[in-house]
Amino acid sequence: MSKKSEEGITAKKNENFSEWFTQVVQKCELADLRYNIKGFLVFQPWSVLAMEKMYDYMEKNLQKKGHKPYWFPTLIPESNLKKESEHLSGFTPEVFWISSSGKDKLDEPLALRPTSETAFYQMFSLWIRSYKDLPFKTYQRANIFRYDTKATRPFLRSREFHWIETHCAHESEKNALQQVKEDMKTTKEVMHDIFGVPFIFFERPQWDKFPGASRTFAADALNPDGKVIQQPSTHMISQEFSKAFDVKFKDKDGKDKYSFMTCYGPAISRIFASVVITHGDDKGLKFPWEIAPIQTVIVPIDAKLNKKAEKIKKEIEKIVNVEIDYSDKRPGEKFNYWEMKGIPIRIDLGLQDSKKGKVTIFRRDLDKKIVVSEKSIVKEISKISREFTKNLIKKADRVFDNRIKEVKDIKEMEKAIKEGLVAKCRFCSTQADGIKCAEVIEKNIGAEVRGTRLDEKTKVSGKCAICDKKASVIVYIAKSY
Amino acid sequence: MSKKSEEGITAKKNENFSEWFTQVVQKCELADLRYNIKGFLVFQPWSVLAMEKMYDYMEKNLQKKGHKPYWFPTLIPESNLKKESEHLSGFTPEVFWISSSGKDKLDEPLALRPTSETAFYQMFSLWIRSYKDLPFKTYQRANIFRYDTKATRPFLRSREFHWIETHCAHESEKNALQQVKEDMKTTKEVMHDIFGVPFIFFERPQWDKFPGASRTFAADALNPDGKVIQQPSTHMISQEFSKAFDVKFKDKDGKDKYSFMTCYGPAISRIFASVVITHGDDKGLKFPWEIAPIQTVIVPIDAKLNKKAEKIKKEIEKIVNVEIDYSDKRPGEKFNYWEMKGIPIRIDLGLQDSKKGKVTIFRRDLDKKIVVSEKSIVKEISKISREFTKNLIKKADRVFDNRIKEVKDIKEMEKAIKEGLVAKCRFCSTQADGIKCAEVIEKNIGAEVRGTRLDEKTKVSGKCAICDKKASVIVYIAKSY
Repeated sequence: MSKKSEEGITAKKNENFSEWFTQVVQKCELADLRYNIKGFLVFQPWSVLAMEKMYDYMEKNLQKKGHKPYWFPTLIPESNLKKESEHLSGFTPEVFWISSSGKDKLDEPLALRPTSETAFYQMFSLWIRSYKDLPFKTYQRANIFRYDTKATRPFLRSREFHWIETHCAHESEKNALQQVKEDMKTTKEVMHDIFGVPFIFFERPQWDKFPGASRTFAADALNPDGKVIQQPSTHMISQEFSKAFDVKFKDKDGKDKYSFMTCYGPAISRIFASVVITHGDDKGLKFPWEIAPIQTVIVPIDAKLNKKAEKIKKEIEKIVNVEIDYSDKRPGEKFNYWEMKGIPIRIDLGLQDSKKGKVTIFRRDLDKKIVVSEKSIVKEISKISREFTKNLIKKADRVFDNRIKEVKDIKEMEKAIKEGLVAKCRFCSTQADGIKCAEVIEKNIGAEVRGTRLDEKTKVSGKCAICDKKASVIVYIAKSY
Repeated sequence: MSKKSEEGITAKKNENFSEWFTQVVQKCELADLRYNIKGFLVFQPWSVLAMEKMYDYMEKNLQKKGHKPYWFPTLIPESNLKKESEHLSGFTPEVFWISSSGKDKLDEPLALRPTSETAFYQMFSLWIRSYKDLPFKTYQRANIFRYDTKATRPFLRSREFHWIETHCAHESEKNALQQVKEDMKTTKEVMHDIFGVPFIFFERPQWDKFPGASRTFAADALNPDGKVIQQPSTHMISQEFSKAFDVKFKDKDGKDKYSFMTCYGPAISRIFASVVITHGDDKGLKFPWEIAPIQTVIVPIDAKLNKKAEKIKKEIEKIVNVEIDYSDKRPGEKFNYWEMKGIPIRIDLGLQDSKKGKVTIFRRDLDKKIVVSEKSIVKEISKISREFTKNLIKKADRVFDNRIKEVKDIKEMEKAIKEGLVAKCRFCSTQADGIKCAEVIEKNIGAEVRGTRLDEKTKVSGKCAICDKKASVIVYIAKSY
């Protein structure tokens, strides 16, 4: 344990969010930023252990819904990327290129995958034959590479990141949209209901689509500085790609047809950032129960209680991942340390308590101490484990909901954005012709039209908040990373 | 399901091993070799599901022994690789180089990691301060890249493969050797005792070390064609690297000392090949219970029994991963298909059996059918699950042990190698001066000195099997990939 991490977090989350986040990443030893390639970082055990669990929840959910796991090559030939022109022009500026192996120049440059549509689809064209093969639902756990020219930030925006990408082929556009809705459901089931991260799933405006997609949907989570951070997105790739890669199937009517593609990309290392940001506080991390690297730590305050600590550990390790802190720090230091590291439950063993057959439990969900009898400890911990993440979610949802503000015009919008809120308003159009109003917002307020909600079907009346045209949609406006 | 996979395996494992392996990879849909970069393949669900479980067993074992998980960048700056000269010259011919991102030329070429010592050690020099930090035990799950110029073979030798690499720093050479022994134990506990792959762990001759290591140890598994395939290796890196990367610690005596490094590399995608090869037979795959993607499949022979199939599935799915085959293939086709795919247990539901309250269980460990009462099915399956892998291991060990042959001279050695055996003989030396005899073997028989066993301490008397010098060691000779 380095000296630095013992100092604790000194920045306030809601006053200086950026500094707070940097301190949490460094002092909780989530990632080391000193690796000698810009934008690349070393993920340390405390984040990796949690992210491995996050992968597990996400993959199990996808498998239950019929997605089969693949491992594709990390490299994609340039000619694959060139097959679909929008995709190429969208991703080319961000691609790392391999041009030699050993001392030999390669015949064709190879890309480090920025995303893998162009790798999967060429195989789809070999694997998919008939409507009976559809929907063809795949995914892979993978690391991807984007030479992002914006400022990099650990977990939020790195040049290599760890994600899952699903790629599916469908019979019809209708089925593709159905898949998009399933992806949204998956996001809620995993990112919200297990990891506790609130979000809104938007359909992005036409001018903000994934390169090569016909419609793009993306979840936005919210940071305390009022900026939204894009979390999983799901795309209707339509038939552009299936034509480019010749992904055809023989339909029931005997005719060859091009399939409709969708893809979905939950980025585990970025979702981890939202977990940290959503639940963390001025003391440091706060892990949801399900993904905490260690769920309970026992702190014997006197060495005489070490035996008792071992006994309690044995009793509870059937239901939780538990460790004993035997380090030679002072008790107060230990308490602060484990609170900063975000351990859900700490069991403090003191001599006074012990004489009375009691132990003190500190629960990080409520930041509260309770004294319970030694005998009931398994029951108590089991009870807390069931309530823990629910408590985090309840609080996170409340914070999130209070940050959405309806506005009528650009003045109100500006005020809301300045206060760190997400503005909601009437808007002329998220088709190509709406871009002028979006530019007005961007220029004057520095905020973006994040999109419309599929699950919000209110009839829109009145005028656009920006121009004089009739409003056709309700949109949400926010600053972003 | 493609037509091809329905044909079944037509090559004999022991007569035409190479063709047998190719057919198993393709017909069991383990990997697709048609990806358009040479030496790179698409791992398909049937292998990925098993390899994910293999990762899990290996990672849990390492974590239990105190290794902490990291995710390092895939890219390593050229200057890191250049810091240790032996390592550089050993790996440079195999490196894929990235020289541009987007349209910009990079200031320094970046390597796709061929292995990650030079990435980990520079961070070790920042993280390790005192003897209290030692042993410093890490690992990462990662994909690595080697532009191997030998013929590539799926799973056995690909240009991108999936492995675990552990990197550790120790106080002393003695502790480093202790770590090497622990790595050997890990290999036995996981690769042999769970995956059922027999092997011998050798210390490699001095002329066959890992580039930059002082001593190299590696497990050899055996293929039916008599060739050995190198499985996990573990290396004493000694202090060359800690000097190059300045990995120092303050010892108890207050002095700064260079730490001793070890690294261990179980390649999951290659171990998977040995699992396939060790247990497979002329019908196809045979998965050990613990890593089978599906452990039990239920085949209702008549649609009238579908309800019963569902009922049985519900009963046993608490203890096994089970699926029902509702496809419209004929029963015989289904039986062959699942035997080829290596499912441990198949439950056949027939009308005759059903009237008597019986079901037929086919167990792939013994390739035997048994008829049991419906009521006892959970008990039966639980019993088989406990015996299953043990049966596979027993058989594999017997086959392996029968393939080691003691030989006295080069004539006997040649005969043994021709018969597909591993030869064991007295040998002058595995230090630098023994290389001449090794070259004689290689030139005349096309086989290699694989090394000596740490766990075989027999006193050696008599002469070297090749030259006239006094023998100092017992070595093993085999052909390899």
